[in-house]
Amino acid sequence: MKISPLAPKLFPKLPDIGGIDCYIARAQYKEWDRCDLTYIKFCEGTSVAGVLTQSKCASPEVMICREHLAHGYARALIVNAGNSNAFTGAKGRSACDHILLRVSNYLGCNENEVYISSTGVIGVPLPIDKADQGLDRILDEKPCSWQQVAETICTTDTFPKGAAASAIIAGKKVHISAIIKGSGMIAPDMATMLGYIFTDAAIDAKFLQEMLTKANKKSFSCITVDSDTSTSDTVLAFATGQAGNAKLTSFDDAGVDAFMAALDSVCKEMAQLVVKDGEGASKFIEINVSGAVSDESAHIIAKSVANSPLVKTAIAGEDANWGRVVMAVGKAGEPADRDKLNIAFGNHIVAKEGAAVEGFDETPVAQHLKGDAIEIHVDIGLGNGASTVWTCDLTHGYIEINADYRS
Amino acid sequence: MKISPLAPKLFPKLPDIGGIDCYIARAQYKEWDRCDLTYIKFCEGTSVAGVLTQSKCASPEVMICREHLAHGYARALIVNAGNSNAFTGAKGRSACDHILLRVSNYLGCNENEVYISSTGVIGVPLPIDKADQGLDRILDEKPCSWQQVAETICTTDTFPKGAAASAIIAGKKVHISAIIKGSGMIAPDMATMLGYIFTDAAIDAKFLQEMLTKANKKSFSCITVDSDTSTSDTVLAFATGQAGNAKLTSFDDAGVDAFMAALDSVCKEMAQLVVKDGEGASKFIEINVSGAVSDESAHIIAKSVANSPLVKTAIAGEDANWGRVVMAVGKAGEPADRDKLNIAFGNHIVAKEGAAVEGFDETPVAQHLKGDAIEIHVDIGLGNGASTVWTCDLTHGYIEINADYRS
Repeated sequence: MKISPLAPKLFPKLPDIGGIDCYIARAQYKEWDRCDLTYIKFCEGTSVAGVLTQSKCASPEVMICREHLAHGYARALIVNAGNSNAFTGAKGRSACDHILLRVSNYLGCNENEVYISSTGVIGVPLPIDKADQGLDRILDEKPCSWQQVAETICTTDTFPKGAAASAIIAGKKVHISAIIKGSGMIAPDMATMLGYIFTDAAIDAKFLQEMLTKANKKSFSCITVDSDTSTSDTVLAFATGQAGNAKLTSFDDAGVDAFMAALDSVCKEMAQLVVKDGEGASKFIEINVSGAVSDESAHIIAKSVANSPLVKTAIAGEDANWGRVVMAVGKAGEPADRDKLNIAFGNHIVAKEGAAVEGFDETPVAQHLKGDAIEIHVDIGLGNGASTVWTCDLTHGYIEINADYRS
Repeated sequence: MKISPLAPKLFPKLPDIGGIDCYIARAQYKEWDRCDLTYIKFCEGTSVAGVLTQSKCASPEVMICREHLAHGYARALIVNAGNSNAFTGAKGRSACDHILLRVSNYLGCNENEVYISSTGVIGVPLPIDKADQGLDRILDEKPCSWQQVAETICTTDTFPKGAAASAIIAGKKVHISAIIKGSGMIAPDMATMLGYIFTDAAIDAKFLQEMLTKANKKSFSCITVDSDTSTSDTVLAFATGQAGNAKLTSFDDAGVDAFMAALDSVCKEMAQLVVKDGEGASKFIEINVSGAVSDESAHIIAKSVANSPLVKTAIAGEDANWGRVVMAVGKAGEPADRDKLNIAFGNHIVAKEGAAVEGFDETPVAQHLKGDAIEIHVDIGLGNGASTVWTCDLTHGYIEINADYRS
């Protein structure tokens, strides 16, 4: 598959995280020449937090993560690529239970300290024999690199995705390494964004959850490729505590602001990488909405613009079609007053107070739209609510990937 | 432009409606070789009802219709094609007011008995000089046919759309003729579905509104091409009373059931015609949701399936990808229990109680998907709520029309 034109040139350097070893192997969930099973081992005392899809048809993996997150400890993570195991009834659940049992027996831990994700085709129960074959191999493997893990969890992604950051907590340096997969919320016959964040910081599990939930609101919740929410979306954060900092337990602790900033930065970078690998994407689009009656209202309006096929095809066509932005604001159902609306592409205001700016120079706007990083600003003119959402354009590539395909 | 493969072979025979004369002329709103201005004259005492876009950025035409509908009488309808006049501030409103003044002076009626719609590019004020030029011509014209009107209100539609029905009200035969335009809710740089229903039945305006609102819920509110709601959507119903039936005023009147059935049938047919001219459409898709907790919940789920780019591209690819239907049900946010879900394509159940039907024969399903009328049935298994929604597939044609275009 052609690598996305929006892909970064190189996979970033991710620091090793004390207390974590990564392994990959071939389970052969599909007939392909690559590793598709990942096993990540955590030292005792590792905290975990997670945000999971809100789909009413979530996969058994999502439900297992939700159950296990209740106590906040983790010893292992298993990721299967090539089969999402979603909508597979009791069979899918028992395949997961089988894996949890084998891994927990091997490690001598409780089954509920093992986390699991799967990504790929919906509706086919995960084959236990292939999982077993993969586990036989992986438990003998030597540890591998972050980049190898990032490659192994991919499905139709066109490039592996990672992000890193560090922070000083009361004199102790702590590190964050993170990997993610997803070609938008979606992929042909597949449907998963999976993200994993690893840190050597010592953080109480409940507080880690608070921080992850907060970071999620400004990152993963602010991206959309095509409005199709997956049955398996999962982001998990693991904190091993090996950096030796005093355990973070609340927003009042010393150094917590630095860690929160690092976590925000990693989550935002990972979320944007997913959009940059959006199916068929040729342009990265940032939509800034300000002046809404609340942040929540601004977010709904920004999502309405980001999910509009008309806006996305206009950007693909490098067309400064702000009428379509007006349409998308209007259909959002949130408070808006046509005669107070301002719209800009890049730094160029094209519509002001409910009408086109008279005699505005189209040249710089056209120039901005020729680039591959597009900004759309919408000021509602009613209040102080603001939100930023990231998406990509809608191109022939999207149709090729999703329609010119047979299961 | 290539005519939609889903277009009917012929424009239907629409009966003349007593009390109505139609006229068309060239205002030259665009540089094209066709009529683009429509004027329809109603006899005194004609009742009117309407349903209009809920967009917060509605066009001045929509706001004028909303104001005039308050009293329920109509003497004329003006439709401009080639310019939607939406988001044009005070200029756009005064262009409308100018037209209303000229037409009402000509007819010797009140300005608020004239209705107006415009369809086409957003953000360019309707040019008054061109409107005047068109009005100069149209007021001298000879009446024209329904088909000519249906052609004149089109923009990027690929075929003119009409529907007819009749009913007996207490021994009197009454007729309905209706025309509509729209290539989905949307069209390249244009954004309007406009529908007009004409009957010679005598119907109280308030009651006509009740019936239209009811019919709308099972017709225009049940279609989607790409989820992009227009700034100008308008459906108006006019009743001239020339059939001589006793005026209908409530659902208790004799003959009202027959008329309601005729109105439902016309609205449903018109709505489906718009989907059949959906941009790039190659397949007409009916989505039936049953077993939801309420009809409203079923409608939200059906719309979620109908608006899913993944489901629409799967149908374009003739792929029985029911996993994508599960995804779309899951993301709708309405009550659903994965383990009670049944899904069928045509008459063929592919998934039952939360998992694929074991060993089901894919041949008849593949056969069904090769046709151009696709049925997707989803049973939620929780209650008695049901809804049907119509849409079309998402193809390269959609991207070509909307992205490969420059303003």
